Amino acid sequence: MEKYEQGPHSKVRRLPERAHYDEETIHSIIDSALICHVGFIQGGRPFVIPCIHGRGGRTVYLHGAKASRLLGEAGSGMGLCLAFTSVDGIVLARSSFHSSMNYRSVVAFGSGRKLEGTDKVEGLKAISDSLVQGRWEEAREPTEKELLSTSVVAVDIDQATAKIRTGGANDDEEDLNGPWWAGVLPLERRFLEPVPSEDLKAGVGIPKNVSDRIEGGF
Amino acid sequence: MEKYEQGPHSKVRRLPERAHYDEETIHSIIDSALICHVGFIQGGRPFVIPCIHGRGGRTVYLHGAKASRLLGEAGSGMGLCLAFTSVDGIVLARSSFHSSMNYRSVVAFGSGRKLEGTDKVEGLKAISDSLVQGRWEEAREPTEKELLSTSVVAVDIDQATAKIRTGGANDDEEDLNGPWWAGVLPLERRFLEPVPSEDLKAGVGIPKNVSDRIEGGF
Repeated sequence: MEKYEQGPHSKVRRLPERAHYDEETIHSIIDSALICHVGFIQGGRPFVIPCIHGRGGRTVYLHGAKASRLLGEAGSGMGLCLAFTSVDGIVLARSSFHSSMNYRSVVAFGSGRKLEGTDKVEGLKAISDSLVQGRWEEAREPTEKELLSTSVVAVDIDQATAKIRTGGANDDEEDLNGPWWAGVLPLERRFLEPVPSEDLKAGVGIPKNVSDRIEGGF
Repeated sequence: MEKYEQGPHSKVRRLPERAHYDEETIHSIIDSALICHVGFIQGGRPFVIPCIHGRGGRTVYLHGAKASRLLGEAGSGMGLCLAFTSVDGIVLARSSFHSSMNYRSVVAFGSGRKLEGTDKVEGLKAISDSLVQGRWEEAREPTEKELLSTSVVAVDIDQATAKIRTGGANDDEEDLNGPWWAGVLPLERRFLEPVPSEDLKAGVGIPKNVSDRIEGGF
């Protein structure tokens, strides 16, 4: 089983939830997150920006407007921290102290490089696939001008840690017979009915891969 | 209408989505986010950590184990960046270039201070209320030992920007008559049926504020 190098994050984390370093777990958490939060330093200050992402192997793709300072700097090799988090439930213990959340998270470290040419198109395709698999081939492909106005950054991940909490409340033995309710409020994310654009050309129906995405859920 | 000072973030952001600086919008986005992502600098590297948060006025509360380096450093006055993001839908335009997401996000800047005594308890109560309003009074209150093993940091926000994207795909005029489907896949987050702890004392039913939280949704 391929494993990631453990990041410095692992020593910073405050909770005793189970840590994972295998590619399978880390990639599945990255792929099921709709967005990531990208941390970087600018002018000596920390910044965190939500971004849509795609993935191929150990590389995460980000995109943005050419004018973006984030993408400009991120592509210049500076160190980045990427966090991917899905919340699965609220854990209410009998004590406030043991109350928590069920979640799956990855914190990854790497540096960015700006993509050009066919690599850039591949990066954009990976991002598009993360929204709806196969959408790239079905939508209108980018023009030369659109490609020029877009920056695509590949972040090669060299350290990553997944943390996962599942299950019920872990109350203290002496609280078990107390008068307090305890349990989990599971959370679900789902698609509602799609809303087609009002100005669709007559006869253009919803493509199969879009319906599949809706049915597939998370 | 009370407004936040615009953060440097506003100049970094690459998308033309509408920016908001009023307290009402910013606080509602902070409150509806289940977690936040906290960015900080340690050893010259950027870190991003997912955290449960509470809020009171312009102050955001974070907590963690005493041993946590994040909480230790965050409470020492260093500059932090907090991001709160809710994704509301996938926007599929006719062109990949105009495809996007509907979302509500806040990026806020401030510095942290460690809380002690009654302030610390108030901070923990704010975090508990963000999980389930009124839960603090209903759960077993923390012991002296538990309080000692927990760090609570208050982040006083001095700059914040909300960005919101809503609505459908914004396709180019010349694509409108093309053969491509376009529309929005709205996303919903909801609670599933609560799962009570198996070892609950007989007769302990689900409290009203917990059912209210489940019904209230997001």
